[in-house]
Amino acid sequence: MEYKDYKVWKIEVKNSIAWVTIDNPPVNLINASFIEDMERFFNQVKEDDDVKVIVFQSADPEIFISHFDVTELTEFPEEAGPKPTELGLWKKYFMEFRTLPKVTIAKIEGIVGGGGNEFCLSLDMRFGAIGKAVFSQTEAAVGIIPGGGGTHWLTRLMGRSRALEAMLGLMPFSAKMAERYGWINRALPADKIGQFVEILANSIAYVSAETIAIIKKSVVVAEEMTRNEGLLEEGHLFAIAAGLGDSKGRMNQALETGLQSREMELGPKRRLEEMKKLLGDIF
Amino acid sequence: MEYKDYKVWKIEVKNSIAWVTIDNPPVNLINASFIEDMERFFNQVKEDDDVKVIVFQSADPEIFISHFDVTELTEFPEEAGPKPTELGLWKKYFMEFRTLPKVTIAKIEGIVGGGGNEFCLSLDMRFGAIGKAVFSQTEAAVGIIPGGGGTHWLTRLMGRSRALEAMLGLMPFSAKMAERYGWINRALPADKIGQFVEILANSIAYVSAETIAIIKKSVVVAEEMTRNEGLLEEGHLFAIAAGLGDSKGRMNQALETGLQSREMELGPKRRLEEMKKLLGDIF
Amino acid sequence: MEYKDYKVWKIEVKNSIAWVTIDNPPVNLINASFIEDMERFFNQVKEDDDVKVIVFQSADPEIFISHFDVTELTEFPEEAGPKPTELGLWKKYFMEFRTLPKVTIAKIEGIVGGGGNEFCLSLDMRFGAIGKAVFSQTEAAVGIIPGGGGTHWLTRLMGRSRALEAMLGLMPFSAKMAERYGWINRALPADKIGQFVEILANSIAYVSAETIAIIKKSVVVAEEMTRNEGLLEEGHLFAIAAGLGDSKGRMNQALETGLQSREMELGPKRRLEEMKKLLGDIF
Repeated sequence: MEYKDYKVWKIEVKNSIAWVTIDNPPVNLINASFIEDMERFFNQVKEDDDVKVIVFQSADPEIFISHFDVTELTEFPEEAGPKPTELGLWKKYFMEFRTLPKVTIAKIEGIVGGGGNEFCLSLDMRFGAIGKAVFSQTEAAVGIIPGGGGTHWLTRLMGRSRALEAMLGLMPFSAKMAERYGWINRALPADKIGQFVEILANSIAYVSAETIAIIKKSVVVAEEMTRNEGLLEEGHLFAIAAGLGDSKGRMNQALETGLQSREMELGPKRRLEEMKKLLGDIF
Repeated sequence: MEYKDYKVWKIEVKNSIAWVTIDNPPVNLINASFIEDMERFFNQVKEDDDVKVIVFQSADPEIFISHFDVTELTEFPEEAGPKPTELGLWKKYFMEFRTLPKVTIAKIEGIVGGGGNEFCLSLDMRFGAIGKAVFSQTEAAVGIIPGGGGTHWLTRLMGRSRALEAMLGLMPFSAKMAERYGWINRALPADKIGQFVEILANSIAYVSAETIAIIKKSVVVAEEMTRNEGLLEEGHLFAIAAGLGDSKGRMNQALETGLQSREMELGPKRRLEEMKKLLGDIF
Repeated sequence: MEYKDYKVWKIEVKNSIAWVTIDNPPVNLINASFIEDMERFFNQVKEDDDVKVIVFQSADPEIFISHFDVTELTEFPEEAGPKPTELGLWKKYFMEFRTLPKVTIAKIEGIVGGGGNEFCLSLDMRFGAIGKAVFSQTEAAVGIIPGGGGTHWLTRLMGRSRALEAMLGLMPFSAKMAERYGWINRALPADKIGQFVEILANSIAYVSAETIAIIKKSVVVAEEMTRNEGLLEEGHLFAIAAGLGDSKGRMNQALETGLQSREMELGPKRRLEEMKKLLGDIF
């Protein structure tokens, strides 16, 4: 599938990974063009069986995504109207990213704030470059709230205490602090984040599309069902995954090439050491 | 509003911030005077539109709050009676702090244990001074349990594994370890915590009272509703916040003074560097 | 009670602590013998009033538990059948460990993966030796999913973003990284983990069996009930604990020996310093 003629997103697919570069000068604002590209991309990629992983990055070395265009927010009616019964377009897509049977990753190497941060929170994983990434969720300064899921996702990710500090304290967070608060998966040295995300994306792309879909589904289940229901559903999903011809092939091949031998079972330790050699002492 | 003639709390309000100093020698025990002041303060401050932020600190340099007066706990009947249908006075106030449309902060620079720790857990944010703050939740040593919300809040904050260790291991936690477990928002150098909390409290006080109330409400919603319901409610709260005259004024002023220009959008990075210059490498 | 003639587990009880050493060469695989011992042990220990704490460790210095025997997984039918209505034997025991009125601890000093990691996740607490413990949840590489509760427990422990990375990224995690992700309670120096776990287990064993049971129950309640219901139940459990003759005895003894005096209330700080002296700067 070709991803052509996007306005402010550039999309390149290789080895089952879609690399999406956000390029909306001067500040990577979320404006009509950004949202148009997001919708178009979502609707295209969800039908694209060749894509298992989507990595978002920025063409701007200082700004990942600034925020939602505030000029569009000043026109809200004074009376709020009734509580909506359906999610607005913007948040609807965020929820769909969440259940998309592909893995979405933000590689954050600059400032990200407001709706840009909410966009990142809706993705599966977030990594931040030490010394370059800066996280900001400061809508409160201009009277509004993070209304694109921010109050919700931050609270679920980091708990009420840290989420309230993040949203009301009006302070920027470094990548290291963001990791400590659970805002991002981890902070990585700026000269290693690219290599790390490339290794990670390729590892995920090694997993079959069916298994990726089943694991994402089981995680959504774990978040939403009671413990007992979730574990029963997980058992069912396990049986589906184990019954796949591809899974049987992978298991048999692993057994034939030494799985369960001591040599092979010491593999994770060797792999950890190899990654340290490659990326430095970041594990 | 004046806060006078409290028994063991001293209250000073400036710039929309109420600074509450707990001064109940010899060990800042939670006794009848403490609870009387707590009730009185809560009922007074909730009507005080001039207060947006409440910071709790201790007059004792070594002890923040010790714990609930144990002499009052030895008289419990042997038969527990039926399960209560309403929260007891002490816990009722904790729950009301939680939904109070003002931000509550604990600046912890000494030992805090038992019911004192539960008091802190009921507040919106907790900060601990490295080398001075010590956290302890060791009721189990004398046969009882953290019954002022401790089993509940610790489990929600840090998960079952760390909460069980904290409550059954009978070990003290340093500020650094408390941060790693999610017990507090963050650990700060003892000579910087005062300045940090002052900056934070003033930042929050810059936010309008309405927006503070709406964000706290949306966080409570995120904790209690399903994801979809929570996101719908957040959308409604956003519309309310965006419709406020004050919000429109703040947004328009921000746009007029450069919001969405590159210069302005690089602000969070500059602010992070300024804070590092002021407070040291703690971000 | 005697724990004799186990096949691959060795069990020694002293001071109310059962030390279980897993010894199933060559790679501590979870096979029929492992599961037989687990069932037998669970059914024996749950009737043993002399045991308050169970610590799991490995006889193999490089491997804690490798994983579930994959040869048994290649025979799954292609059609998954209907969703189960009861938890399978393996997961049923995990859930029973969770509510067992005793504390379970994993002292992890080697590689742990797949079902072995799920076994650890079902326990109350996990500690990892720095430089020796390696955590791996990489079923996805062979097409299957962590079906022994892994998708569920990892998501609840570390949130969806880190859980997805852990399960789909196919990367090993060091003890330090595992702590940062919330996978384990804490990472400890390899030469201190034994002493730390011994102190912790003995501290827990100092607590009365009734109080341990009540605290575990209140934590389960905190995880499963709404906040208000959980707090009401906690109040009820507190009344039960405070009414116990043993609790009254412990409280009165503490008061007689100085509780609520300044000298005694500074105890947590002294204890923290003693532990630092004993175990190094790990608190």
